[in-house]
Amino acid sequence: MRKVAILGIGQTKIDEHWNKSLRELGGEAAFLAMQDAGMDKVDALYVGNMLSSMVSGQNQLGTFFSDWIGLWKQEAVKIEAACGSGAAALRSALMAVASGDVESALVVGVEKMTDKAGRDITAALATAADADYEAEQGVSFVGLNALVMRRYMREFSWKHEDFAPFSINAHANAMHNPYARLHEKVTVEKFEKSSMVATPINLLDASPVGDGAAAVIIVPAEKVTRKPRVVIAASAAATDTIAVHSRRDPLFLQAAYLSSRKAYDMAGVSPDQIDLFELHDAFSIMAALSLEASGFAERGQGVRLGLENAISPQGRLPVCTRGGLKARGHPVGATGMYQIVEVVQQLRGECGKTQVDGAKIGMAQNIGGSGATILTHILRIDD
Amino acid sequence: MRKVAILGIGQTKIDEHWNKSLRELGGEAAFLAMQDAGMDKVDALYVGNMLSSMVSGQNQLGTFFSDWIGLWKQEAVKIEAACGSGAAALRSALMAVASGDVESALVVGVEKMTDKAGRDITAALATAADADYEAEQGVSFVGLNALVMRRYMREFSWKHEDFAPFSINAHANAMHNPYARLHEKVTVEKFEKSSMVATPINLLDASPVGDGAAAVIIVPAEKVTRKPRVVIAASAAATDTIAVHSRRDPLFLQAAYLSSRKAYDMAGVSPDQIDLFELHDAFSIMAALSLEASGFAERGQGVRLGLENAISPQGRLPVCTRGGLKARGHPVGATGMYQIVEVVQQLRGECGKTQVDGAKIGMAQNIGGSGATILTHILRIDD
Repeated sequence: MRKVAILGIGQTKIDEHWNKSLRELGGEAAFLAMQDAGMDKVDALYVGNMLSSMVSGQNQLGTFFSDWIGLWKQEAVKIEAACGSGAAALRSALMAVASGDVESALVVGVEKMTDKAGRDITAALATAADADYEAEQGVSFVGLNALVMRRYMREFSWKHEDFAPFSINAHANAMHNPYARLHEKVTVEKFEKSSMVATPINLLDASPVGDGAAAVIIVPAEKVTRKPRVVIAASAAATDTIAVHSRRDPLFLQAAYLSSRKAYDMAGVSPDQIDLFELHDAFSIMAALSLEASGFAERGQGVRLGLENAISPQGRLPVCTRGGLKARGHPVGATGMYQIVEVVQQLRGECGKTQVDGAKIGMAQNIGGSGATILTHILRIDD
Repeated sequence: MRKVAILGIGQTKIDEHWNKSLRELGGEAAFLAMQDAGMDKVDALYVGNMLSSMVSGQNQLGTFFSDWIGLWKQEAVKIEAACGSGAAALRSALMAVASGDVESALVVGVEKMTDKAGRDITAALATAADADYEAEQGVSFVGLNALVMRRYMREFSWKHEDFAPFSINAHANAMHNPYARLHEKVTVEKFEKSSMVATPINLLDASPVGDGAAAVIIVPAEKVTRKPRVVIAASAAATDTIAVHSRRDPLFLQAAYLSSRKAYDMAGVSPDQIDLFELHDAFSIMAALSLEASGFAERGQGVRLGLENAISPQGRLPVCTRGGLKARGHPVGATGMYQIVEVVQQLRGECGKTQVDGAKIGMAQNIGGSGATILTHILRIDD
């Protein structure tokens, strides 16, 4: 496997983009990435997306975008792994470049959600769960996470407010990210008084949906002269049962454990060498579980990292440094690519007030479903 | 890129499987492929599918199947390129094994269509076209192909009955394929009297939808001792504009031309060395266009191969030897994998009355949309 580097990045602001179509959103991120890479053509296009057939009546999204952005002959394909679609598209692109068959690839994560009403989106998101055994019972996606959070609070004796630091940190960081959907400070009081969505998950535990796209260009590392050179040091994916109720332990993210361990091995690093971690805080409970399974906290102790203020950009393990899913926003199929773009921004030192000093190794973890598909990527500066 | 072989194959009969769920269909093909390969575990799973979110309310199909078939930890992902999803999934799997990151992969193409009424399926299939500029005008997928066929007939002075041999050959071959949906002989008279769908396309020009799944196991070629050893000699993908009206020449499949030329180069063969060609005869016009763009006929002369009886199993260029999309059936996201399985059957000499004598090199071409995404694979015996 040859070494692969990320040469260019691009992203749109996450918002309710009623004046931008699916085409325009994905195209904007793609053009920005190509501009940043100084390229006007690539061999192949990989698109991460979950909902376009249901929201926009559009499938075949690979060719839909290769056409729109003028890559009329190049190969193009769509990858779907629910909310893990973005990182899954990056991994497919990586395999193609690493194999030697493809010399350059554009990866676009894109999602247009707000063209449909909330009820339709809730139903569309439920397709990430098990249609026959979970969705059929009427449980929504947030409902599944609420069941997990309640069990976690009972099992490990945490109060709801103990989860506040995840939300507070994400919102504080998003204040300095112009691409973030929410620019609003959160306090413990606000967190506790927020409207309930599905007990115990309230509005400030949950990430907002949105429209957005993020993209990167990858090429063989040997071809990159740009400094710092950001390489993909590790890429790993793993799965669990699709239904939460089928798991021996619903409070342990097996796929996060497996994919992070494989990634550490591949990159030759240990968790304490990770300078920042863009984790998948779709709900605050997922932040805690991700930290635990990825080796940063003992079982049931993930929330402690927040309470000890270890997760801020100045802390021991900065997470969600650009706002995370919680405040940057969660356009589902695009999220994994936002995380990758943000890690690159950190390694390039472009993050201003939320810059992690001397960041050299960053990790991103993207989750599809209730922990069913999990991809972990480690990026590092390699000059 | 290391050489990759197909070790195992599996398929279900294509039918209206009202008593088998999406899970059971894909699982059946997967188990058969694993049994044929003599393996009970693989590193990674790639699922080709187009419609499951719209028909079955199920996304995240990679993990949906890795869970169902007991690959609980392995990575899994879904690939979508409309009716080209099957071959696109094979290509993604191939890249992963060729790169050295994955040692064995299961590829499943699966589609469950008949749970929805015809009107819903027509709308779902229209998501392969351009939602904003084609589907928005109310043109269905068969309607788009009808426009192309009419133009072709006028431009090159062919009559409707000149297309009959494609349908007759496909149906004759399907009589000997137990997995085919239709077992019914077609004659020129029947062909001409068949009900009209969208002028000039009638029922015997068009492939039937259906439920089905086909699967293969791929591994590095060096690990295969089974004889004959079937390797993937070439894999290539290319695209065109997504909307037919955007093309300079709507009668030329640019993506078939590009992907077939790349595949010939990669395999080091010329068209006249191809012993059989599983082409994408979703409509009879597509068979003609595919033959022309892939170098088997001059522009506008694809139908002549049928009229000259070159396409039968005993002909110069056997096509659709197991029934093709027309008679084996076209469960859209699974079709590309049926083609691959059928080429392997031919190279293994397992095709009985439709066996192509001494077949050593076979080609499969899978098309997404109206020629928008096209993948060409060449398989060969390499002992």
